[in-house]
Amino acid sequence: MSRILCVVQDFLSGEHRDKIRQAADRAGFTPYFFTPDQKDAAKEYLQTCEVLYANSPDILRETSAALKWYVCASAGADVYCADPSLFKNPDCILSASNVYGATIAEHVIMVTLELLRQMPYFKEPLRRHEWLLSPPIRSIKDGDFTILGTGNLGHTIAARLRSMEARRILGVSHSGRKVDIFDEVLPVSQLDDVLPKTSFLIMALPGTPETVQILNRERIALLPSNAYVVNVGRGNAVEQDALMDALNRGAIAGAALDVVTPEPLPADHPLWETKNLILTPHISGNMALGFTRDENVRLFCKNLLRYANGDTPSGVVDRSRGY
Amino acid sequence: MSRILCVVQDFLSGEHRDKIRQAADRAGFTPYFFTPDQKDAAKEYLQTCEVLYANSPDILRETSAALKWYVCASAGADVYCADPSLFKNPDCILSASNVYGATIAEHVIMVTLELLRQMPYFKEPLRRHEWLLSPPIRSIKDGDFTILGTGNLGHTIAARLRSMEARRILGVSHSGRKVDIFDEVLPVSQLDDVLPKTSFLIMALPGTPETVQILNRERIALLPSNAYVVNVGRGNAVEQDALMDALNRGAIAGAALDVVTPEPLPADHPLWETKNLILTPHISGNMALGFTRDENVRLFCKNLLRYANGDTPSGVVDRSRGY
Repeated sequence: MSRILCVVQDFLSGEHRDKIRQAADRAGFTPYFFTPDQKDAAKEYLQTCEVLYANSPDILRETSAALKWYVCASAGADVYCADPSLFKNPDCILSASNVYGATIAEHVIMVTLELLRQMPYFKEPLRRHEWLLSPPIRSIKDGDFTILGTGNLGHTIAARLRSMEARRILGVSHSGRKVDIFDEVLPVSQLDDVLPKTSFLIMALPGTPETVQILNRERIALLPSNAYVVNVGRGNAVEQDALMDALNRGAIAGAALDVVTPEPLPADHPLWETKNLILTPHISGNMALGFTRDENVRLFCKNLLRYANGDTPSGVVDRSRGY
Repeated sequence: MSRILCVVQDFLSGEHRDKIRQAADRAGFTPYFFTPDQKDAAKEYLQTCEVLYANSPDILRETSAALKWYVCASAGADVYCADPSLFKNPDCILSASNVYGATIAEHVIMVTLELLRQMPYFKEPLRRHEWLLSPPIRSIKDGDFTILGTGNLGHTIAARLRSMEARRILGVSHSGRKVDIFDEVLPVSQLDDVLPKTSFLIMALPGTPETVQILNRERIALLPSNAYVVNVGRGNAVEQDALMDALNRGAIAGAALDVVTPEPLPADHPLWETKNLILTPHISGNMALGFTRDENVRLFCKNLLRYANGDTPSGVVDRSRGY
């Protein structure tokens, strides 16, 4: 019996499907394509497939112990790690698609400049058609940055800041292992020493038990009053109520959140009207970007051939660690 | 009699004044410092000074034929070129301060990302607390850009786009002379051939008779419907009514104007409510940036020593050409 590959995605073009068909053919797989709303039609194929390329716990839930490799099209795999019952086969490989570095980094550069250049200050005056002079601004050039998370995403952000002549880029990671693009990388155990000297904090962390509320009220209080905070990892990495307090009191200078708790954010949530906050609806890793879609498919095809050869695909997630 | 230097600026710190005093001492000048609101107190010194470092035609108007060098603290010198009566000495040297490349380039990168990432689309929904998915976006990475103007500013913008992995950067200048950072530079005579192939146009031109209305109605009509326009040069380089029409009809995808006609823009001007337009109140070359202030003073001091040695200072403007 031929090995079965199920692809359940809503972003694929005809060209993308052709590429997957060719890769499946070379790897000895028969591919079946569905969109997420065709769950009923997909059911019997999900029951028998060995490999699934999808982006939803609901789809994964329909698989059987026959599933040996699940590829999620997103970069964050925390939702799959949090619920072991999703995998009928305890040894099923889980891999994430680390193709969002470029678009998330462009989002980070955008909001970093919006914060440094005081764009929240202009928001209401511009709505009232007031032509104002600018308050003091800062720049990426000659600026200092702390990036929490030195993985694919943190690294790409650091490279962009470096190319725009940032003065010093400090990384903070679980291990504190040196990563070339950073001036220095410190272990997360030293975070409390780093925060008082941080005037711009960028959070690019995976969602794991260790990162939940890592920026809590006590740590927010360690930041100097000229500090900005950007979060593009997971919303639960920040103690959101404490951040709102700090922003509304002017205890820190500003923040940009692309991830929040909960998502979608209810219309009556106080976060919407928090001072000096740039809020965006989880759009930084935008799959609408052609580049991201193409890369996602390219990476999947490459990994399918590796998998068929008995090699480990890239982006494999340690389900116990969560990244 | 000692040679007289007048400094009429409102942004100088004590440290800046000390640096100017030291340079003046080495150059054989006696410096006198005033703020722009001290015009009366400054009058007799303006009448006798050989060198004036200021930023206002009103101050320049108070000088005599004794003035041999006027240094304006801005990058654009068009206002001084437009009115020859400002200079009692027809041979007076006029120089501009080309220190705004870094901050204007950061502004351009910010609004470029805001346009490519569809931020105008989110403006009203976010005000209504609506959590929306993103429409298709584009990126600087792998993107194509046309920059009108290849001087200090155009060059710095091109370098930033290059470092963010833009695919192709085309320059258009008066001469069409090759500048290294661009893939190609074409003369302005070929602008009409360039525009139909331009999906992102950045205008970084000095204010000269040649650049007035250079992007007129006919040329705006040559742009494809997915095109964005950014202007950080002079407001009069764009036929503003025609650009408003094109934006409101969706004939082009969007624009970001930091310079407009007139400035300040009256509260009832239709530009305020033009569709897909990011409007900022001439803040791109922000003097509030510490870096820009320091560079301005550093450059002046360096040029003062050159001038005292009989050399030509940098940034000299051909008053007949306007840049």
